[in-house]
Amino acid sequence: MMKALYFNGTSLALQEKTIPKTEAGQSLIKVALAGICRTDLEIFKGYMSFEGVPGHEFVGVVQESSDSSLLGRRVVGEINAGCGRCNYCKAGLERHCQRRAVLGIAGLNGAFAEYLVLPTANLCVVPESVSDENAVFVEPIAAAAEILEQVHVIPASDVLIIGDGRLAYLIFLILRLTGANITVASKHENKKTLFEKIGATVFSSSHILSVKDKFDFVVEASGSPSGWDLAVSSVRPRGVIVLKSTYHGTLEFNASTLVINEITTVGSRCGKFRPALNLLSRGLINPTVLISESFKLDDYSAAFEKASDGKTFKVVFRM
Amino acid sequence: MMKALYFNGTSLALQEKTIPKTEAGQSLIKVALAGICRTDLEIFKGYMSFEGVPGHEFVGVVQESSDSSLLGRRVVGEINAGCGRCNYCKAGLERHCQRRAVLGIAGLNGAFAEYLVLPTANLCVVPESVSDENAVFVEPIAAAAEILEQVHVIPASDVLIIGDGRLAYLIFLILRLTGANITVASKHENKKTLFEKIGATVFSSSHILSVKDKFDFVVEASGSPSGWDLAVSSVRPRGVIVLKSTYHGTLEFNASTLVINEITTVGSRCGKFRPALNLLSRGLINPTVLISESFKLDDYSAAFEKASDGKTFKVVFRM
Repeated sequence: MMKALYFNGTSLALQEKTIPKTEAGQSLIKVALAGICRTDLEIFKGYMSFEGVPGHEFVGVVQESSDSSLLGRRVVGEINAGCGRCNYCKAGLERHCQRRAVLGIAGLNGAFAEYLVLPTANLCVVPESVSDENAVFVEPIAAAAEILEQVHVIPASDVLIIGDGRLAYLIFLILRLTGANITVASKHENKKTLFEKIGATVFSSSHILSVKDKFDFVVEASGSPSGWDLAVSSVRPRGVIVLKSTYHGTLEFNASTLVINEITTVGSRCGKFRPALNLLSRGLINPTVLISESFKLDDYSAAFEKASDGKTFKVVFRM
Repeated sequence: MMKALYFNGTSLALQEKTIPKTEAGQSLIKVALAGICRTDLEIFKGYMSFEGVPGHEFVGVVQESSDSSLLGRRVVGEINAGCGRCNYCKAGLERHCQRRAVLGIAGLNGAFAEYLVLPTANLCVVPESVSDENAVFVEPIAAAAEILEQVHVIPASDVLIIGDGRLAYLIFLILRLTGANITVASKHENKKTLFEKIGATVFSSSHILSVKDKFDFVVEASGSPSGWDLAVSSVRPRGVIVLKSTYHGTLEFNASTLVINEITTVGSRCGKFRPALNLLSRGLINPTVLISESFKLDDYSAAFEKASDGKTFKVVFRM
C-alpha cells in the first residue's frame, strides 16, 4: 500500500492506495520530491476536469521497469504520454498527440503519491551532478525553455517578462542566457527582492509603460487578463508576445491592434526534458533557491495553503 | 480645380477642391483608376477617425515631381509615408513608423479625387506590361503578399483561407504560388463560383470542420468575429493563424486553447509594392477578373452601394 493524495473532482484527500502495477513498456517510480505547480491549484478549481492523483513535477527512483538498466536509477519523467503512432508522436511532439494522457493532469495518476507509473520511454536519468532539489524543477524548466524552441531571442533583444511567480523566475533564468536585455514586471514587493538578487531589472507592472520603450518580446507569465493588456500595449510593432500562462474564462480584446502593428502571439506550453536537464547539469541555471518550504504528504492542507498565498515561490512534497 | 470625394467625419460629398500643391520631395499624380476597399467602408463608419479625401488604391500619371525623370510616367504609390528618420523607416518598415501618415486613411488626402500628392520616394513606376486594371490592385496584392514575408508556407502545407471577398481572392492567388493545398471557407454561394473558376476548393464555412482535417495555416480574411472562432477550431496544434482583417469592437475568446495547442497568431497588414508589381509584370497573378464595375466620381453613391452589397468583388472609380 502507499499514501496518495486523491482529487475526486471536488475535494482532495489523503488515501491509502494499492501501489500501481506496471504494464509492458512501463516503469514504477518511487517518488522522492514532488513540486506544487499553479496548474495543480487550477485543477482543484476544475481545470481539465481531472480526477485522480494530481502532481506532475517529480524526481524519484525506478523500482520496476521494462528496461532493467534503469532499476535503481534516479529519474525525472516527461509528463505527456502520447499514442506513439501519430504524426505528432513521430515528430517528437508527444506533447501535442491528440490522444495523449498527461501525468496528474489528464488520464494518468500523478506524483503526489509515494509511487507512480509512467511509460519507460518518458524517463530521463538524472546525472549525478544534479541534486533532487534541482531535478524536481526539470518540468517547469522545460516549459520555460520551450520559449527558445519557438522564438529566436538574441543578445540585442529587449524582453519584458510579465509576472513574478515561479514560472516567471525560471523564464528569467533561461532567457538571460541569451544575453538579451530583460525587464520584469512585478506586482508583489516581496517577490521583487528575489528577482533583484539575481540581477533582474524589476519594475512595478503599473509603471512599466512609463519607464521603458516598447519591447521586442513580451512573455506573459502572470496568468491574469491584465497581463494580456499590458503585453499588447508594451510590445513594439512587429514584436512577439509569448503566452506562457492560461487564464480562467475568456479574454476580451481589440484584435485591430494585433493586425495594425503586425504583432505575433505564440502560445507556449510544455517543453523537452533532456535540454532542461542539460541546463542543470552544466550549471547554467540553479533554481534551488526557489524552494520555499517542503512538506510531508500528511500535511497537504498546509502545503497547498502555502503554495497559494501569493508570496511563496515553490512548495515541494518530500516523501 | 478638381473633383474630389470628401469625408467630413460623418458624411461623404463630391466637392470642387483646388489641385493640391507639392512640396520638396513630393509628386503630384493625376489619378486614372482608384479602387474601393473594405477599409474605405470602415472609414465611413468612423474607423481611424479620418477626415479628408479617402481612397488608397490607385494608379495614375505623374504631373509634377521632385524627380523629373518621373514626369509623365505611370505609377502606383506606397500608402504609408514615414518620418524617414526612425528605426522602422531605416529598416524599410515605413509602414510601422509611429509618425506615419497613410494615404486616404490617416493624415493624407487620398485617391478618390482627380489628383493626389505623395512623397516621390513612395512611387513605383508601373511596367508597360501591367495594365491600369491590374496595377490598381498593387496595394491589396502587396497586403496579401505580406503573408509570405511573415510566415513560411511550403508545398506540403495545408492552408485554410476564411473569407470569400476581394482580399481572400488575392490571398488565394498569392498563396497558391507556393504549391500548398488551399481550402477556402466561403459564406456566399455567388462568390464561391469565382473561386471555383480559378480551381479553388471551396467549402461553406459551417461545414469546414466536418470535411477537412486541421490546417497548418489558417488565414482569417473574413473580417467577422465568427471567422476568428473558426480559425481557432480549425488550426492544428503548433499551427499558425494569420489575422488579415480587422474587426469592429472587441473579440472575446479563451486564450487557453492558444497556449495548450501552442498556436501562433500573426497580425498582417500592408506589404511592399515592388514585389507585388513583380508578381503582376511576370504574369504570376491576374486579378483583373475581380473588377465588377467601374464608376465616375459623380456616381459615388451608386459605387459605394455596389461595393457594400456583399455580392460584388471590386468596384473602381475611373476618372
